[in-house]
Amino acid sequence: MIAALVLTVGAAPLVGADRAGGRVAVTLIAAGLPVASRQAVDEDEAAVEAALRHALDAYALVVVLAGAGGAAGELVRRALARLSGTRLVLNERLLTAIEAAFRKRDRPMPRRAERQALLPQGATPWIVPSGEPAWLLETATAGVAVLPAGEAALGELLERHLLPYAHGRLGGKEAVLVRTLRTVGVTAAEVEERLASFLPRDGEAAVTCLPVDDEVWVRIRAREATPALARETLARADAEIALRLGADCYGRDADTLEGVVGGLLLDRRLTLAIAESCTGGLLGHRITNVPGSSAYFEQGVLVYSNRAKQALLGVPESLLRAHGAVSAQCAEAMARGICAAAGTPCGLAITGIAGPGGGSPGKPVGTVFVGLSVAGETGARRFRFAGDRESVKWQSTQMALDLLRRAVLERA
Amino acid sequence: MIAALVLTVGAAPLVGADRAGGRVAVTLIAAGLPVASRQAVDEDEAAVEAALRHALDAYALVVVLAGAGGAAGELVRRALARLSGTRLVLNERLLTAIEAAFRKRDRPMPRRAERQALLPQGATPWIVPSGEPAWLLETATAGVAVLPAGEAALGELLERHLLPYAHGRLGGKEAVLVRTLRTVGVTAAEVEERLASFLPRDGEAAVTCLPVDDEVWVRIRAREATPALARETLARADAEIALRLGADCYGRDADTLEGVVGGLLLDRRLTLAIAESCTGGLLGHRITNVPGSSAYFEQGVLVYSNRAKQALLGVPESLLRAHGAVSAQCAEAMARGICAAAGTPCGLAITGIAGPGGGSPGKPVGTVFVGLSVAGETGARRFRFAGDRESVKWQSTQMALDLLRRAVLERA
Repeated sequence: MIAALVLTVGAAPLVGADRAGGRVAVTLIAAGLPVASRQAVDEDEAAVEAALRHALDAYALVVVLAGAGGAAGELVRRALARLSGTRLVLNERLLTAIEAAFRKRDRPMPRRAERQALLPQGATPWIVPSGEPAWLLETATAGVAVLPAGEAALGELLERHLLPYAHGRLGGKEAVLVRTLRTVGVTAAEVEERLASFLPRDGEAAVTCLPVDDEVWVRIRAREATPALARETLARADAEIALRLGADCYGRDADTLEGVVGGLLLDRRLTLAIAESCTGGLLGHRITNVPGSSAYFEQGVLVYSNRAKQALLGVPESLLRAHGAVSAQCAEAMARGICAAAGTPCGLAITGIAGPGGGSPGKPVGTVFVGLSVAGETGARRFRFAGDRESVKWQSTQMALDLLRRAVLERA
Repeated sequence: MIAALVLTVGAAPLVGADRAGGRVAVTLIAAGLPVASRQAVDEDEAAVEAALRHALDAYALVVVLAGAGGAAGELVRRALARLSGTRLVLNERLLTAIEAAFRKRDRPMPRRAERQALLPQGATPWIVPSGEPAWLLETATAGVAVLPAGEAALGELLERHLLPYAHGRLGGKEAVLVRTLRTVGVTAAEVEERLASFLPRDGEAAVTCLPVDDEVWVRIRAREATPALARETLARADAEIALRLGADCYGRDADTLEGVVGGLLLDRRLTLAIAESCTGGLLGHRITNVPGSSAYFEQGVLVYSNRAKQALLGVPESLLRAHGAVSAQCAEAMARGICAAAGTPCGLAITGIAGPGGGSPGKPVGTVFVGLSVAGETGARRFRFAGDRESVKWQSTQMALDLLRRAVLERA
């Protein structure tokens, strides 16, 4: 198949989150490259060899993530030597790079680290300044890139080595370009209805709707004889679909909601302060994941207790007694309070019941109020989210960021 | 291989979290059953068929997760019919169950839902009262269980159908039990050195070290003739290893650092307030991910600007001028300041340079100070983390939570 498999070796990604694998898959897809599958394999000799044997048969590009220093890296090196019918030989360039990486971190290089420089014959090291190296092996049918599972050097390895190689390997005779339009604040059913004339459409531009992390992504896959034609088809479909999505589409491909909101604030020279109750810091975490956010993010308060809501935001005790902390009135008072305390034009506040406890018939678990204040105008909206504690927290921050985004957009 | 593969079909799990797949893998592993791999495959006919063909060859049990009603379920039914050389035939029992599930939810059954009752010849429906049904197909080499990806009925299907079947298919003659001891604040090399007499050990209890998310996990896999013997072997290995790890081991299996810290605070009736600069809310987010954290988490402040550090925490301007905001002195002042503001015995503060900008030769990107105050005693520690912005934020919260954990433990 002219497509990629992302394969992570380790016991942890098997049961938990496979962050490195997800990042590689998203990066390839965002670059318009076809990823057919993502797989996590136990750190077990037979399991790794079986998975790699199939992968070399079935995919044009196999991206393997494995801790080079640990048992996983060793299993991968041995299995690929066996499967490609070669021996492991010492790669001097790689050894020098590994020694340099240890020196840079002021750590002595343990003897066993030398084993990382043993590669199947014919393999090429991929070396970057920022951390552990990677390497590439080309078999008769496939290219196998073996990357370190640690995230330190991953970004640089993807940009400088994997993406250019993957474009060559997967580009093929047909040009396939993929773009994702990201929407927020609408359901998949609404998006599908608006795009009914496109869905399902197996012609030159295939369009699919994916609900992902409480957003709806519209994926366009343009397949044409040449890259130039594919770019044209993609641009045409993008324009038609964007028109139907309007302001519900907040960005494309690797854009994030927090990044787009940050860009809007920066453009308009607005600053922001936040007050979080049930989300406990997730909103601030997302806002400050954006490099450069210190230019518009002034401060935040995590006001779990009523005492903190009064002391830090000046929410009147009488309001809390009359309406409770989970109310539109409290969300508005929090938004106004944080603007006043921080001296910012924009204030965003979240208060609600993330669960599993704390619900009541009138305000069940998942009830959340978002308060927003922009240049003195303040309002609040009530939401009712389904899902567990972490899911309610996530959805609350999605809706808070989206309310702010739409309010700032409307001010033009 | 006498092991299971968990295979999720869909475009969303390929790029995001595959929660249903993770849940199935964890359930099987917790029952002592070997899961060799977990895979997500794009909703694409060729990709699904290639993955299933390999899966039937390589694993004794394949658990497929696919939305029965959508395109994914249809692709799986067709591919399995082709691969097993049978036709799709209407299964009357399954049709009745599907009709009942729609009636129960008071929803009309769409015509296309009938297609879900078309199964490869020889397949057996698995029907539960709580929701969508599943089905099982046995080929010459493997058992394939096809489960709905929605989580409503998944628990019941796992308990009543999948686990009993998987025990028969995978149980074999041996009992295998797995446990993970989670450590923090030590490197993989240190852990490996302390456990040198166990590593690598392929005897009755195999022990491996895994670096995961800036922790080091020690996994014990006990393999014996009977479950009782496996439990004994596991307990013996656990006790020996825990002794060598001491306080560096903070928990087992599904324990989280924030959960363990929360338990310690609750036990000792201590309350906590936090002040975050470069982590921007991630510490508060992790603390409040623990249900019931409102019992010990009082409040937090996200003080990105110097102005906020002065206004909310009383950090003196002279201190900021003399030492800068990224300094041990500032971290200590922040920890003391948040305790005073919130009236809590415990205060935790983080200030540092998450990058990519903001570094200097004396304080490069990744320099982070954690300040800790417990019952009036305050100190700070300097760290130097590698990695990108999100990775530095994550490592900072790991070290902050660990410092608090050790300080509270020492007070006994």
